[in-house]
Amino acid sequence: EKKYGRKGNLSLFEQIQKSRSDEASRSVLIKVKGKSDVSYLLDEFKSKNVPVKCACYSEPDHLLVEFKDKDCIEKLFKGVGHFRGNAFSKIPVRVRTRYLFKEDHGKSTLMDENRLDSKSVKIFKPNDFDLGILKQNTQLSEGINLLWNNVKLTEFDIRLQYFIASTLKEMLSNMFPNCNASLFGSCVNGFGNTGCDLDIALDLKQKSTVNEEAHVLKFLTNQRFNSEREWQQHLLDIIGNMVWVFIPGSGKINKILNARVPIVKFQHNNTRRECDISLNGMSGVKMAELMFMFGELCPEIRQLVTVIKQWASAKGVTKDTQPGPWMSNFMLIMMTAFYLQNRKLLPSFRQMQEVAVETERYTEDGNDYSFSTNIDLLKKKYLSKESLDQTSLERSVPDVGTLLQDFFKFYADFDFEKYSISVVEGVPVEKKTFNALFIENPLDVEHNVSRNVNAQNVNKLVKEIQEGHTSICGSSPMLYDLLEKRIKNVKSNSFNISSLFKENDG
Amino acid sequence: EKKYGRKGNLSLFEQIQKSRSDEASRSVLIKVKGKSDVSYLLDEFKSKNVPVKCACYSEPDHLLVEFKDKDCIEKLFKGVGHFRGNAFSKIPVRVRTRYLFKEDHGKSTLMDENRLDSKSVKIFKPNDFDLGILKQNTQLSEGINLLWNNVKLTEFDIRLQYFIASTLKEMLSNMFPNCNASLFGSCVNGFGNTGCDLDIALDLKQKSTVNEEAHVLKFLTNQRFNSEREWQQHLLDIIGNMVWVFIPGSGKINKILNARVPIVKFQHNNTRRECDISLNGMSGVKMAELMFMFGELCPEIRQLVTVIKQWASAKGVTKDTQPGPWMSNFMLIMMTAFYLQNRKLLPSFRQMQEVAVETERYTEDGNDYSFSTNIDLLKKKYLSKESLDQTSLERSVPDVGTLLQDFFKFYADFDFEKYSISVVEGVPVEKKTFNALFIENPLDVEHNVSRNVNAQNVNKLVKEIQEGHTSICGSSPMLYDLLEKRIKNVKSNSFNISSLFKENDG
Ligand SMILES: Nc1nc2c(ncn2[C@@H]2O[C@H](COP(=O)(O)OP(=O)(O)OP(=O)(O)O)[C@@H](O)[C@H]2O)c(=O)[nH]1
Ligand SMILES: Nc1nc2c(ncn2[C@@H]2O[C@H](COP(=O)(O)OP(=O)(O)OP(=O)(O)O)[C@@H](O)[C@H]2O)c(=O)[nH]1
Ligand SMILES: [Mg+2]
Ligand SMILES: [Mg+2]
Repeated sequence: EKKYGRKGNLSLFEQIQKSRSDEASRSVLIKVKGKSDVSYLLDEFKSKNVPVKCACYSEPDHLLVEFKDKDCIEKLFKGVGHFRGNAFSKIPVRVRTRYLFKEDHGKSTLMDENRLDSKSVKIFKPNDFDLGILKQNTQLSEGINLLWNNVKLTEFDIRLQYFIASTLKEMLSNMFPNCNASLFGSCVNGFGNTGCDLDIALDLKQKSTVNEEAHVLKFLTNQRFNSEREWQQHLLDIIGNMVWVFIPGSGKINKILNARVPIVKFQHNNTRRECDISLNGMSGVKMAELMFMFGELCPEIRQLVTVIKQWASAKGVTKDTQPGPWMSNFMLIMMTAFYLQNRKLLPSFRQMQEVAVETERYTEDGNDYSFSTNIDLLKKKYLSKESLDQTSLERSVPDVGTLLQDFFKFYADFDFEKYSISVVEGVPVEKKTFNALFIENPLDVEHNVSRNVNAQNVNKLVKEIQEGHTSICGSSPMLYDLLEKRIKNVKSNSFNISSLFKENDG
Repeated sequence: EKKYGRKGNLSLFEQIQKSRSDEASRSVLIKVKGKSDVSYLLDEFKSKNVPVKCACYSEPDHLLVEFKDKDCIEKLFKGVGHFRGNAFSKIPVRVRTRYLFKEDHGKSTLMDENRLDSKSVKIFKPNDFDLGILKQNTQLSEGINLLWNNVKLTEFDIRLQYFIASTLKEMLSNMFPNCNASLFGSCVNGFGNTGCDLDIALDLKQKSTVNEEAHVLKFLTNQRFNSEREWQQHLLDIIGNMVWVFIPGSGKINKILNARVPIVKFQHNNTRRECDISLNGMSGVKMAELMFMFGELCPEIRQLVTVIKQWASAKGVTKDTQPGPWMSNFMLIMMTAFYLQNRKLLPSFRQMQEVAVETERYTEDGNDYSFSTNIDLLKKKYLSKESLDQTSLERSVPDVGTLLQDFFKFYADFDFEKYSISVVEGVPVEKKTFNALFIENPLDVEHNVSRNVNAQNVNKLVKEIQEGHTSICGSSPMLYDLLEKRIKNVKSNSFNISSLFKENDG
């Protein structure tokens, strides 16, 4: 685990993004045939004098190698060949994708696989979590921990995410020299699970440091479009085509250009990660930072949300397609944060705004996304005086099992009809609209995050919360009961954790 | 006029290409409001310490500035702003297009326009040639010279061509780090006229210097296509979209992907140059070099071809659309070269092949494009002994007026039915096919360049040659009669030279 302190003007979240992106820009993804290839390649790199900083091997066939510096990559690429099949596959779409494969030389099998278990290589196995083992656990917190440890993002998952974003950025950086591909959503906000999708915000605009008006010369651009939206649609169309042709292993390109926020989806084959590219500015990234802050201020929220997402999926409260007139994971996170605010385990967003300092100010297109990112300050100033030891900043928070029970109790008692879930205030606020459910978007208060959820699905949510409450707050609460699927004829309790999130009783 | 000597392994043609491309990579195109802007900008560059090597101003509104080195451009771009209109026009698609415009500051009108007529600024006016003045000229050669001087490519035309190719290359160089955008066709083969189209061969494949087989790692590419053709079509499709969005002033994008050679056409607006992008390797460039060699070995061919192209267009032998079952300019060049070969004023292609040395060998996809590029050697060894002064290499060639008359005489006597026009042999060779006309492609002997020309159009060619012969070989030959259009109701004899090439009597 890396440690980050406050450095310069960057918040902790921004530091992590920067450091992970730098790491990714020094990394190369290699398709191998197995463990023996890995040790063979590491020897090769050593002999070629391209020092490896870290190698992550994900079974069965992916190796993500981080080199000491970017020069290593240039050096390495000089010795990389092209596939000698058909003429058209020889075309060197290359440096920027940084996706290689190891050719079969027949020598690999002779290598000693055991040499791999050294410090320099981390080995990852695909998750294969059996929900059934939760039947054995009597302690609720213990079960939650077990689940959390099995579904949280691995180091390989995280590195792969930033690698994919880096690949996209490099593909576009010639045309947009100052572009950035920022991750947001669950893959970076602290609530991601193995296999979660990658939300990527492309930022093509360069913030100019000087007064633009003063320039004698301006870049001539085509006035092809009547709106920013039209420009986004065209650009995403092109980007989708480029991804399809140029990024190895990209599959299932899906352009959703007429949505409120136009996006291009693609799947990073083999690794099966789905990517959503949008061009809609940094609000999503700021939202991710806010959620990340919640996790830093009250780490229990990450485990809580993991269970609640799984419960919602098992009971059909959320569905595997978005958007629709039902609940989303994003709303569940907001609900969980709001619950913790009510218990004074998280500050309200208003409190976070109040202590924001100059370097934390951020506005975009007239929206103000400023909030404090000073974890120590926020803890000291706002978090429950009873539970917080003022000198050490150590808190004695109820265990996560108790919090889960309390979450169900809180919402079993909550009057969804009368009150809106206001993350800004951190307490229930009277609803101002007729929406069946109102979950405030803290970064855009007038905006109801759950405006699409219809009455039927709100009723479903309320009913499932009641049932969950009964089930989890009984005399011998079992996590298994809460997460058990509604469908009776499930053949086996053993399944891949990512498929678990996809199924529900409809 | 630049002078080039044989340098290293590069032929004269290759040296020109390299030197012009380098020049283009240091150049920026600026849209100005008039002459006064030009002097204002040059002062600006001076005060900003970005030294200008050469500035070409083309009336009314284009300024092409070549800087001393590429660093100047980086430096310049730091002070270039973005248009502050709609948000979407601010998006920095920039460095790579290098197309700027000067903002109106109101100060420009105060500048002294006369200062411009210094050595550092070349001024170009759009051609506006009046064919009528040819009526005054009694001497044929004098008329041809007048025509030639008015329609040949200007320094601005040439620089603009390489600038456009350079722009394309930069747009793609991030994905294809070793790509090249080479010009071919009339714009570089020595037979181009003002406003001629730009034929651009994209070369995405990097020639590997090392043994590819030995590499342990290969770049992974998508196996999306079943043939090189399919890959070309997809790529040109993407390139067309990118050009449309990213290259300022690009218009009339036309993708002709199902042609034998798939191409994407676009127009460089304002400057009105049409560009054809193809991906079909270097054969076109080699052909351009061969034609360029013809021009170097016998400079009169350039003037001859200019007149012949204009005659063919006026009489409807060629048409303004290609391809079709009629003659093309390319065929006319081959016919002119063949005529000069028969008069021993040009060597045969076979002779040029015979003395090719190792550094002149060039093969691609199994085709051999090798020929000598040693001008002195070829002149000394093969050109007509009678007319060539062996010591000084100066020749006493008939004047260009006489050559034009002789051209018509040669083809008036030529048996198109029986013989093929063999640039390889340099003498008539018996036809091996039933095509109405056979013009050998020297770089691919089996290939008949005029296979598409039908009997009707060959008859038209023959008839027009006969008439031209009569008209030009009379007692007082007038160039005007030869180039006069067939249509009687032409309103004026004064027109833009580029429009001249577009019209014919159908
Ligand atoms: N303002 C606003 N932002 C949203 C909404 N839905 C999603 N987002 C943002 O988009 C991000 C990505 O959305 P998703 O991929 O659907 O959700 P997620 O948080 O990544 O969770 P997963 O289901 O694990 O992908 C979220 O984290 C939010 O920042 C919405 O309704 N309103
Ligand atoms: N092998 C072959 N090459 C051709 C043929 N037609 C054109 N080309 C090549 O393509 C180049 C460009 O073609 P065009 O743009 O039509 O002709 P051009 O010589 O540039 O003359 P312009 O009419 O001034 O453009 C030519 O110079 C030839 O090298 C053909 O029929 N066969
Ligand atoms: Mg997501
Ligand atoms: Mg051409």
